[in-house]
Amino acid sequence: MEGRKVTGWAARDSSGILSPYSFNLRKTGPEDVVFKVLYCGVDHTDLHQVRNEIHMTTYPLVPGHEVVGEVIEVGPEVKKFGVGDVVGVGCMVGSCGECTRCKTNKEQYCNNMVFTYNAIYKDGSFTQGGFSSAMIVHQNYVVNIPEKLAPEQAAPLLCAGVTAYSPLKQFIGSKKAIKAGILGLGGVGHLGVLIAKAMGHHVTIISSSDKKREEALTDLGADCFLVSSNSAEMNKLKNSLDYILDTVPVNHQLQDYIPLLDVQGKILVVGAVPEPLQFSASGLILGGASISGSFIGSTQETQEILDFWVEKGLKTKIEVVKMDYVNKAFERMEKNDVRYRFVLDVAGSNLE
Amino acid sequence: MEGRKVTGWAARDSSGILSPYSFNLRKTGPEDVVFKVLYCGVDHTDLHQVRNEIHMTTYPLVPGHEVVGEVIEVGPEVKKFGVGDVVGVGCMVGSCGECTRCKTNKEQYCNNMVFTYNAIYKDGSFTQGGFSSAMIVHQNYVVNIPEKLAPEQAAPLLCAGVTAYSPLKQFIGSKKAIKAGILGLGGVGHLGVLIAKAMGHHVTIISSSDKKREEALTDLGADCFLVSSNSAEMNKLKNSLDYILDTVPVNHQLQDYIPLLDVQGKILVVGAVPEPLQFSASGLILGGASISGSFIGSTQETQEILDFWVEKGLKTKIEVVKMDYVNKAFERMEKNDVRYRFVLDVAGSNLE
Repeated sequence: MEGRKVTGWAARDSSGILSPYSFNLRKTGPEDVVFKVLYCGVDHTDLHQVRNEIHMTTYPLVPGHEVVGEVIEVGPEVKKFGVGDVVGVGCMVGSCGECTRCKTNKEQYCNNMVFTYNAIYKDGSFTQGGFSSAMIVHQNYVVNIPEKLAPEQAAPLLCAGVTAYSPLKQFIGSKKAIKAGILGLGGVGHLGVLIAKAMGHHVTIISSSDKKREEALTDLGADCFLVSSNSAEMNKLKNSLDYILDTVPVNHQLQDYIPLLDVQGKILVVGAVPEPLQFSASGLILGGASISGSFIGSTQETQEILDFWVEKGLKTKIEVVKMDYVNKAFERMEKNDVRYRFVLDVAGSNLE
Repeated sequence: MEGRKVTGWAARDSSGILSPYSFNLRKTGPEDVVFKVLYCGVDHTDLHQVRNEIHMTTYPLVPGHEVVGEVIEVGPEVKKFGVGDVVGVGCMVGSCGECTRCKTNKEQYCNNMVFTYNAIYKDGSFTQGGFSSAMIVHQNYVVNIPEKLAPEQAAPLLCAGVTAYSPLKQFIGSKKAIKAGILGLGGVGHLGVLIAKAMGHHVTIISSSDKKREEALTDLGADCFLVSSNSAEMNKLKNSLDYILDTVPVNHQLQDYIPLLDVQGKILVVGAVPEPLQFSASGLILGGASISGSFIGSTQETQEILDFWVEKGLKTKIEVVKMDYVNKAFERMEKNDVRYRFVLDVAGSNLE
């Protein structure tokens, strides 16, 4: 039953320290794509998982869910990919394929969706992520990396990018000039700014302090920077925004932001805050506003954001490091000391 | 400056007891419609206002914002209404007329919207409601009561009806068979059931107890009755509803209901719960769900629900009483002892 032997970097316990780990991929099935990993993005979720902060981790655990690789083998029924293709995999590697959600390209919401790592695959095997020399994934959860996109550039789009893109794509083709707010400037937030600008939106970054003003306006090209504690500034922007992409992963007061929305304006929540979020019913009612949740994106949307990136000539802001730096990268990420995402050069690292 | 002398029933203090009160309407302006009040619905907001429970009441206060009347005079620039017409007025009697909200038929969200009573009109006068022999209202906030609709039947549609209709009209013309949930069976909730059924939705009433099962299924024609404390039943309906119209005006746990929604399902909040409402971000995200607020409806939507009522041959469930019963009606309404709405026969009452 077991296929190719690979080397990943795994956490062994809740210290979350990664070190080399040998394991076997499953035997290549008829619809499987096997690829050598080239690059893999590093996400906050990876840190939470390796440290068992979500209390669902099985060790040893190889994280990584923004994986770019080069195809080295395909099953006999794989039509869309061939050996040598550069491909990508995001947060999921399976789903039931039978439910309405799967059949309408919303398989990320399938009740039997299989996460890229720390999950049980259909055959009973345990999934391991992209901090590894190679991976095997069913073709339905694999996307093409466009030729014009450097593979390391593509990595952050496979989770953070599609997470921002999926709730924003509803505004494509809007006849109205869209006014956007972006709350939080991490991995998802910075890509949200770039996507919203590329969609032609007027983008205001909303931050708790003035610290990121310069980089927001200069590096990311936002139109406006709003400090949420400045009530005069907040008042001036009342009723002005069509949406706020809320990427903040820690507790915050939604009712501070709802007044910024125009009628039928939307708070688009993508940050899984552990504590319950609160809002005032009358604020939501009197503003005719809404609060929506959005979860990563479908495989189709993942392909869309890659193609969008090329079409608009966008550049991901990343810091590429080798695998032996990964524990340090986690430390720095925790202190928010990265602009804006680490990408592991897996193929260029000595994994042993 | 003062026009016609009228008699209303007003509260004088926070006891909320109503008694006869004489006052003057403003002089009839060029776009004003003056009408003799025929019927007026009794709403929970009226009770809160006469008792100063929202801490914004100016006494004496004449409540009433579901007003049906017969036109007795019109200003020279009124084109849409003539003497003898049966007309209606809901929660608002003014707005700025200049902002985007006013210009796009969303004047209920205008920052200068003027409530039907307990508000200051543009000319500085204090607005008084429909528990009164006559009213004067600018033509832009007046609707036509269709000939085929009995005036007492129309009254509850002017606030409760349009409050349910406005968020539901987005589903008109849906290609998908819509599965609806209705939370709360008061004035707004019972009209929500009738509207949703008339739109062809499969309607589930969600209630905290089994008490209303019979009337929900028999009198209101709902398809299904779900007791929220029955977790087996709740589980069976998981991921099944396209929306839940949430009319509950007291604190409740949104996260109990979000799992009932299908992907991109919506909680439509119309009940102004005083305490902050809570939800789990990850629940909203993983379900791709949303929570929207909706505030009454525009004048245009108020006309639409009246026409919809006639077109679909619907019947409002009301108890018609005279003005001298109003204090008793408030008492009974507070105990939820009305199926489903009191309507005052104002023209048939001795108001002195």
